[in-house]
Amino acid sequence: MPAHERTGVWLIGARGSVATTAAVGLLALRAGVTGGGGCVTELPAFAGVPLPGWDDLVLGGHDIAHTPLEKRAEQLAHAGVFGHAVFAAVRSGLAEVDAEIRDGYHPAAHTGAQADAAARLTADIRAFADRHDLARVVVVNVSSTEAPCPHLPEHDDLDALEAALVDPARAVLPSSSLSAYAALKAGSPYVEFTPSAGITLPALRQLAEREGLPYAGCDGKTGETLLRTVLAPMFSARALKVRSWAGTNLLGGGDGETLADPVTANSKLESKARGLAALLGEDVTAPLHIDNVPDLGEIKTAWDHVSFEGFLGARMSLQFTWTGYDSALAAPLILDLARLVTAAHAAGQSGALTELGFFFKDPLGSDEHRFAEQTARLIAWAGTL
Amino acid sequence: MPAHERTGVWLIGARGSVATTAAVGLLALRAGVTGGGGCVTELPAFAGVPLPGWDDLVLGGHDIAHTPLEKRAEQLAHAGVFGHAVFAAVRSGLAEVDAEIRDGYHPAAHTGAQADAAARLTADIRAFADRHDLARVVVVNVSSTEAPCPHLPEHDDLDALEAALVDPARAVLPSSSLSAYAALKAGSPYVEFTPSAGITLPALRQLAEREGLPYAGCDGKTGETLLRTVLAPMFSARALKVRSWAGTNLLGGGDGETLADPVTANSKLESKARGLAALLGEDVTAPLHIDNVPDLGEIKTAWDHVSFEGFLGARMSLQFTWTGYDSALAAPLILDLARLVTAAHAAGQSGALTELGFFFKDPLGSDEHRFAEQTARLIAWAGTL
Amino acid sequence: MPAHERTGVWLIGARGSVATTAAVGLLALRAGVTGGGGCVTELPAFAGVPLPGWDDLVLGGHDIAHTPLEKRAEQLAHAGVFGHAVFAAVRSGLAEVDAEIRDGYHPAAHTGAQADAAARLTADIRAFADRHDLARVVVVNVSSTEAPCPHLPEHDDLDALEAALVDPARAVLPSSSLSAYAALKAGSPYVEFTPSAGITLPALRQLAEREGLPYAGCDGKTGETLLRTVLAPMFSARALKVRSWAGTNLLGGGDGETLADPVTANSKLESKARGLAALLGEDVTAPLHIDNVPDLGEIKTAWDHVSFEGFLGARMSLQFTWTGYDSALAAPLILDLARLVTAAHAAGQSGALTELGFFFKDPLGSDEHRFAEQTARLIAWAGTL
Amino acid sequence: MPAHERTGVWLIGARGSVATTAAVGLLALRAGVTGGGGCVTELPAFAGVPLPGWDDLVLGGHDIAHTPLEKRAEQLAHAGVFGHAVFAAVRSGLAEVDAEIRDGYHPAAHTGAQADAAARLTADIRAFADRHDLARVVVVNVSSTEAPCPHLPEHDDLDALEAALVDPARAVLPSSSLSAYAALKAGSPYVEFTPSAGITLPALRQLAEREGLPYAGCDGKTGETLLRTVLAPMFSARALKVRSWAGTNLLGGGDGETLADPVTANSKLESKARGLAALLGEDVTAPLHIDNVPDLGEIKTAWDHVSFEGFLGARMSLQFTWTGYDSALAAPLILDLARLVTAAHAAGQSGALTELGFFFKDPLGSDEHRFAEQTARLIAWAGTL
Repeated sequence: MPAHERTGVWLIGARGSVATTAAVGLLALRAGVTGGGGCVTELPAFAGVPLPGWDDLVLGGHDIAHTPLEKRAEQLAHAGVFGHAVFAAVRSGLAEVDAEIRDGYHPAAHTGAQADAAARLTADIRAFADRHDLARVVVVNVSSTEAPCPHLPEHDDLDALEAALVDPARAVLPSSSLSAYAALKAGSPYVEFTPSAGITLPALRQLAEREGLPYAGCDGKTGETLLRTVLAPMFSARALKVRSWAGTNLLGGGDGETLADPVTANSKLESKARGLAALLGEDVTAPLHIDNVPDLGEIKTAWDHVSFEGFLGARMSLQFTWTGYDSALAAPLILDLARLVTAAHAAGQSGALTELGFFFKDPLGSDEHRFAEQTARLIAWAGTL
Repeated sequence: MPAHERTGVWLIGARGSVATTAAVGLLALRAGVTGGGGCVTELPAFAGVPLPGWDDLVLGGHDIAHTPLEKRAEQLAHAGVFGHAVFAAVRSGLAEVDAEIRDGYHPAAHTGAQADAAARLTADIRAFADRHDLARVVVVNVSSTEAPCPHLPEHDDLDALEAALVDPARAVLPSSSLSAYAALKAGSPYVEFTPSAGITLPALRQLAEREGLPYAGCDGKTGETLLRTVLAPMFSARALKVRSWAGTNLLGGGDGETLADPVTANSKLESKARGLAALLGEDVTAPLHIDNVPDLGEIKTAWDHVSFEGFLGARMSLQFTWTGYDSALAAPLILDLARLVTAAHAAGQSGALTELGFFFKDPLGSDEHRFAEQTARLIAWAGTL
Repeated sequence: MPAHERTGVWLIGARGSVATTAAVGLLALRAGVTGGGGCVTELPAFAGVPLPGWDDLVLGGHDIAHTPLEKRAEQLAHAGVFGHAVFAAVRSGLAEVDAEIRDGYHPAAHTGAQADAAARLTADIRAFADRHDLARVVVVNVSSTEAPCPHLPEHDDLDALEAALVDPARAVLPSSSLSAYAALKAGSPYVEFTPSAGITLPALRQLAEREGLPYAGCDGKTGETLLRTVLAPMFSARALKVRSWAGTNLLGGGDGETLADPVTANSKLESKARGLAALLGEDVTAPLHIDNVPDLGEIKTAWDHVSFEGFLGARMSLQFTWTGYDSALAAPLILDLARLVTAAHAAGQSGALTELGFFFKDPLGSDEHRFAEQTARLIAWAGTL
Repeated sequence: MPAHERTGVWLIGARGSVATTAAVGLLALRAGVTGGGGCVTELPAFAGVPLPGWDDLVLGGHDIAHTPLEKRAEQLAHAGVFGHAVFAAVRSGLAEVDAEIRDGYHPAAHTGAQADAAARLTADIRAFADRHDLARVVVVNVSSTEAPCPHLPEHDDLDALEAALVDPARAVLPSSSLSAYAALKAGSPYVEFTPSAGITLPALRQLAEREGLPYAGCDGKTGETLLRTVLAPMFSARALKVRSWAGTNLLGGGDGETLADPVTANSKLESKARGLAALLGEDVTAPLHIDNVPDLGEIKTAWDHVSFEGFLGARMSLQFTWTGYDSALAAPLILDLARLVTAAHAAGQSGALTELGFFFKDPLGSDEHRFAEQTARLIAWAGTL
């Protein structure tokens, strides 16, 4: 990667908690008012990898909300995600980021063909790149989880999809996938950090391949699922048969509200469940709940209860409670992904970046869910960039 | 390993909970009344390794207690470690094992030089090998944890040690190390499954090297520490700074009573603490307690509270509660270790078997504590046998 | 209560886990092979109350299942609810109880008017009383939870109800209420230990009043809800504002299966939720789940997470995990209720026994949910009998 | 209590976390920037009790530290105990309180007879009363826990004590008791909120009786012990035999540091243990730990594991984790106690106010530890004032 090259990081959902925390964090890192805690790419293992520096990243994005970033950041400081001193130090920088946020796509607000909407989104990304003389713009979706999208034949074939997109009477793509389509048309690598459809549709993956663009996803692994992919391999390695693995997630914030809708929650629940089945087999009883508990604010609490069987059939159990700030867990990974995808793009890689499975609940192009193995693969791959 | 070769497994502490459960388990596996749950060497990854079959292992051992094995097994069945049906199926077999148990060494009961005591122990092992026409006898220490033993110059030098052993006025070796010495003199590979000194003294390691014998230890990793070596690498890989890791262990049974003595508990606490410091650095506050709670019987419950710091200094926490039957967790590992050490001995390996770190809190000859890495090393090594 | 008077205890669901454990327990108490642990009426506070002795109670009941009681008891012993020694001591007594169990009412298996079914049930109870020369028969419903029953006008008026019951084309009463009707017609006091409709219909309560019979209910308070009614008053007394109280229940056994049906689970969830709202107000976020986790067997595990606000708005939390044998918690209460209702009946009391709220999630005739107050009321009332 | 009478609240340890939070809280209540959450005396049950209003209380105190209150409050706001907005609203008021804090007694800094030191402390309290025209000054000890104090004969007899106090060669009273002595000599009611000796010495209780002064204590019940006195009666009422009750407390802040000293911790551990034994009997295994975990800051986390036995000997368990801000839990109780003791004093009560047991781990003059009973007694008593 040429020195002093600048990379854009375009966030879909740029005014949400995760994006705001990522913006605050990037500004705080640049200002030297925080260390790199929580940033994987700041670990010694990544010291020799040609990653962009914090000064080399420029933030922008789409959102359908209009709350100023500064206001959102103040709310997050109040909620304890970061300190008021950090907020004060980055306040002015947030206004600059705010100026780079454009209206996102909302199906209800749009009339006309989806192709037109996509063209507008693409133009926003291109204009951002031009304004800042960027070598590339990495697009990352951190918007709210969508309801599962019904499968259409057009999702499997790029030509059929593009034909449908120009039809003003149809709306074949969910918002996340329209954003992914627009990103790819802008020549941008794409990261799906939510469980939404995004780039996972075969037609879009064809487009990425055709354009020679790398992509990664999906659904950031930040809490309960992270622990599951750490703990499940232990049971397997010790020949301890897991019989049930029950989980309850309590979350407030916007995320809690979005996921209080059972249809939307299903996207998340499915994404979470796939990993456990892959790790332990299909015969594990695994009830899983996501509850909206507004008073918890930005805090997410997960309780898991694992019942397992050992030697001579002895029945034993493990419980854990994980309490964290969802945004503080997710935001540094956004910066890590932006850096790593930048390096991969600069190195000419394209298609699904399977070595980034470390970051995801449902890794695209890989069925390796074991966290230690994902860690080893990530570090080995980064060493080749 | 030649087919149909038979191997002895000689347990120091042969009437304790772990040894009794191992005996019940081996007999139950042979009788086909239980599956191989909890036995690592029954996993597909070990399918091609030339391990002895369950029929190829013969049990014996030393103990200072005289409670019949059958009686101990009945107590364990009553305490829920295994079912009454399993007990009934192996009852007669236990009497045969019982007949192979000899009086162990107890410093208070012994007069004369320690060399004489060692010679008697060695003779017991040799006679066992002769009686059953065994290709080798693997000695495993599963007796109660000893108090930490003060360091003597003789512990560092084999010649000095042997000179001291013949002096009837001195008792330079703790029981566990006398047993290890006797085992090595009998030509036996040795496994230290407790946190006692055992084979860890440099003079004894010299003896093992000189005799070309393999050994492994120490302190079986079955619960809280197992989880710590699984979870700590996750925090490191995600750049989450652990600030404190507090732990409380509640245990009943004989183990709880032994460890209620603060001096003895220190051996265990030190063994547990070393791993955490190795994994996360020395600056983690890590209070750790072992409490004797007799009413819990054979159950061990551990609660850990981890406080960590993420992006922008966000403070978060993880708690877990592990509830298990200590003997059911440890016993299958005894059988696994006996099998693996047998294969290593048959393959001509000697010295510290560092690849067995997977099984231990404080792996001899290795400072790798990360469980996933230990798992990978174990499997790779087993593939070379 | 005249000395040596004998009382029948007729259990609806007489072959279920709770009834079987109650039968085993009563026989074990009589045989002196267990103490009175878990039996409230064995506490010193009840020493002077004229309660029937264990020898004065005779068991019988209805069930639609045909598994012999001995077989069920063996399964429960195997599942750890009680020891094999207890089972062995009461085995023969169980056969006697078994002989007193008659076919229960099942809507799908019945043709004809519900009045005929009720008459048959009533006759069973009367014949039981005659056979054993019983002073009374207390009927207790411990059968599986029913789905919530839609409200009909006949449920509010006894005359209308009795008119409908003789109509072979209609089935206006759910099974639990038909059993309650039959019990009252047999002159029996009635206890509703489940969240099913049972005696809660106004028409049936009219019948009880008319017949001068006491009754009590509903839904035995044995675990999570017990703790809630103990803990919630603490928050109130300390002016700590509870903001959310989330709960997850994991249960195996037949109960788990029954409650895996979301419609049926609703009966239980509603019964549980009412108490919390009564104790803390309506504005507490209180998601609540019941999950069927078959491998847990007879064990029930509940996790609750309470988020509350203190001085100056400080946000704090309490979590608890309760792990118990549901049947072992419920069964002694069945015996306690049988004894106390017997004494109340002997003392001429009729109508809702509100002082028994101590035992129930949703106390009939009382909105006192605070456990300490319920305890005080129970003891005071018992002293008047 | 005459209207518009003003009462002083003199805090021993006036610059500590609890005192600072109480000061912030009182100022915030007066300023209307917070509600009365956490204040028991703001509950409807106390509506008719003639308590002083928030405007009627004037704060002052002794401390051996010199950190300005404003600085301490800022640290507490940073630690999350209260919001920055609250801090900003009370900042100027804190300076006024600060001006009323005098140097406390420190044995190492004092030369001469303890009587002289006491006289100086008494004079400070009297001058405070004069300056503000106070009807009375209630003295509350919220300073750090002292090591247990060895018993001396002078502690049992007031005359002997006063003779010893004038001897410059002796120092018979620990700091807390010297403060209590000085308070009583100033005509002040006294509250012992710590587990230190304070007023508990018989000679001082004689002095209070002689002076007709009320007093209360000791050791504020704010977390783990509060829960124990709520939960233990439940087990008793349900005839569930508690076999063990293990506890671990993790705390940071100054409290953690003070209690990291095992000798000092003993005062607290003894105070905590007494209640459990009183509630459940002496035969409950009850290991208890207090660990200093500095990174937790002002947060205190307690984990308790209760093992109990039910019907037919079934073994079950309850665990809880309590996470709270110690100061936010204790501070409102200081204001409650000041109000209630004021009303008691105004009503002419003297001696141990046993009805305040509700607030204490080790209630003076009462062996009632059951929280619900304490609540009822408190409310009934307050109604008589």
